Amino acid sequence: MHGEDPTALVLGLDVGGTSSRALVSDLSGRVLGVGEAAGGNPNSHPAPDAVAQMAGAARQALGTHDPAAVRGCVLGMAGVSKMADPAFGEFFRDEWSRLGLGCETTPVSDGVVAFAAGTPEPKGTVLIAGTGAVAERVEEHRTTATVGGWGWLLGDEGSAYWLGREAVRATLRALARGAVIEGLTESVCAHLGVPPERKALITAANAREPIRLAELAPLVTTAEDDAAEDIVHRAAVLLADTAATARPDPSCPVVLAGGLLGPDERVGQALRAELEARSWPEPLTAGPGAAGAAWLAALPLSPDPNALHKTLLG
Amino acid sequence: MHGEDPTALVLGLDVGGTSSRALVSDLSGRVLGVGEAAGGNPNSHPAPDAVAQMAGAARQALGTHDPAAVRGCVLGMAGVSKMADPAFGEFFRDEWSRLGLGCETTPVSDGVVAFAAGTPEPKGTVLIAGTGAVAERVEEHRTTATVGGWGWLLGDEGSAYWLGREAVRATLRALARGAVIEGLTESVCAHLGVPPERKALITAANAREPIRLAELAPLVTTAEDDAAEDIVHRAAVLLADTAATARPDPSCPVVLAGGLLGPDERVGQALRAELEARSWPEPLTAGPGAAGAAWLAALPLSPDPNALHKTLLG
Repeated sequence: MHGEDPTALVLGLDVGGTSSRALVSDLSGRVLGVGEAAGGNPNSHPAPDAVAQMAGAARQALGTHDPAAVRGCVLGMAGVSKMADPAFGEFFRDEWSRLGLGCETTPVSDGVVAFAAGTPEPKGTVLIAGTGAVAERVEEHRTTATVGGWGWLLGDEGSAYWLGREAVRATLRALARGAVIEGLTESVCAHLGVPPERKALITAANAREPIRLAELAPLVTTAEDDAAEDIVHRAAVLLADTAATARPDPSCPVVLAGGLLGPDERVGQALRAELEARSWPEPLTAGPGAAGAAWLAALPLSPDPNALHKTLLG
Repeated sequence: MHGEDPTALVLGLDVGGTSSRALVSDLSGRVLGVGEAAGGNPNSHPAPDAVAQMAGAARQALGTHDPAAVRGCVLGMAGVSKMADPAFGEFFRDEWSRLGLGCETTPVSDGVVAFAAGTPEPKGTVLIAGTGAVAERVEEHRTTATVGGWGWLLGDEGSAYWLGREAVRATLRALARGAVIEGLTESVCAHLGVPPERKALITAANAREPIRLAELAPLVTTAEDDAAEDIVHRAAVLLADTAATARPDPSCPVVLAGGLLGPDERVGQALRAELEARSWPEPLTAGPGAAGAAWLAALPLSPDPNALHKTLLG
């Protein structure tokens, strides 16, 4: 609380494929507004829609606060290189200028935001597993290496997509060896609306958009049988391998983020056990991304970033 | 040549996704006509088109021979269960009746046809690897188990699709570790028309139909570097595992079929080495599928099926 401008505000945005979130705080970490809008990732939505959702979340978070008082703005999203695309940049600047911000907006990857939402340290590893899976090596609050994040066609090992695909594969193997169809394999057939029969299962899985295999992930993370346990364990090993490749050094913090990796989630628990078995330090869990982004925005302005982190994300 | 009807003919069909082939022979194994038409697999073509292609190939093979003289007809294709679909069956019977055959047509799997095109034995294992990969356990000239054949979304390990996908993955790994992009990894980028850059490669691979990854397989089977060698070796191990699961017993013959498994093909050679290392008997290579189907059609009519096999397929 020493030396900062009491009127200065910061704006953080966490823009995803299904939702866009924004948060405005002052430099003491007091949250003055939050906003939420539909997905704003320009890699999965048309540019005008994407920027409209981002701006909508920001406007809602600003509320009646003077946008000119915003001294720092950080926007985190997957595939952030899109911001450098000239055609997209024009849409973005047009829409963004209407916000009336008094500062530049700094785009960073969703990994950098998630890492900041887990720790105030400048350097370490963040692992995100939801529909997809990706790890980033973070140094000086910037991404210096991206591991995974290849998408469902080429990778995403350990992701919800991968869990769902493995669930169908486990069911096909069970059918092939004439095993009793129960537990996970039974729920896979029921979810896809087919009898326990090889050809019907293959046809049903192929009739849907491939990414929709991710919808079967909850069957894996809730079933309590060996087939599910095996898939969860393999996911944890693959995710730990991904994180290991993105690790700057063993003393740095590791932050876990994404729907699969919460401390109460089955994959999150298996991953924590796997990392412990590898003698890693206990991983941190990312808080809300918009708060992480707001903290990054405040970083150059704050006399005590660690205290601010505790207030915003503690 | 003892006891058979010298006027009797048999008709064999091998119906695939990209071509339909037919062969007419007499019971001594003398080939009287062959026919070829476009793809006729009803799982990848509309029913009227599929049956028209099958019938076109058959008609061409019959030529001026009397269809009423045909005493046996075997039609092999992938996904043969489609023949039991009532809607498809109607299309098939309508078109087929115009052929004027004097016998029933027996549908069998492409695996049974390929197995018969490799050996006259009634029992063994056939492994087919082309765009996809599948193995069948054959007993009494019928499929008793199918291993793999799940399609690109769920499986196809060791197939051309898999080789192409692994080639892109190897390139992404090479880029991630900052390796020199040369040989296989260079040709992958060139084939996809992108600079050696992670994001560009992911985007280009995802912009195409997934199955088109199979088009990259020849890059793997012609490159002479460690990356290609590693992929070919892993394909051979996966294919050998698939074959092993479909094996009735170790003394039975193993037949290899499909574009990847020819004796001059790199994956075919690696697989033969892998099977030898596992102390399997030397695998046989399938001859033309239509001849295999014709031999199956002649089987109940021929006094010496082994001699006939030699004549037709030797």
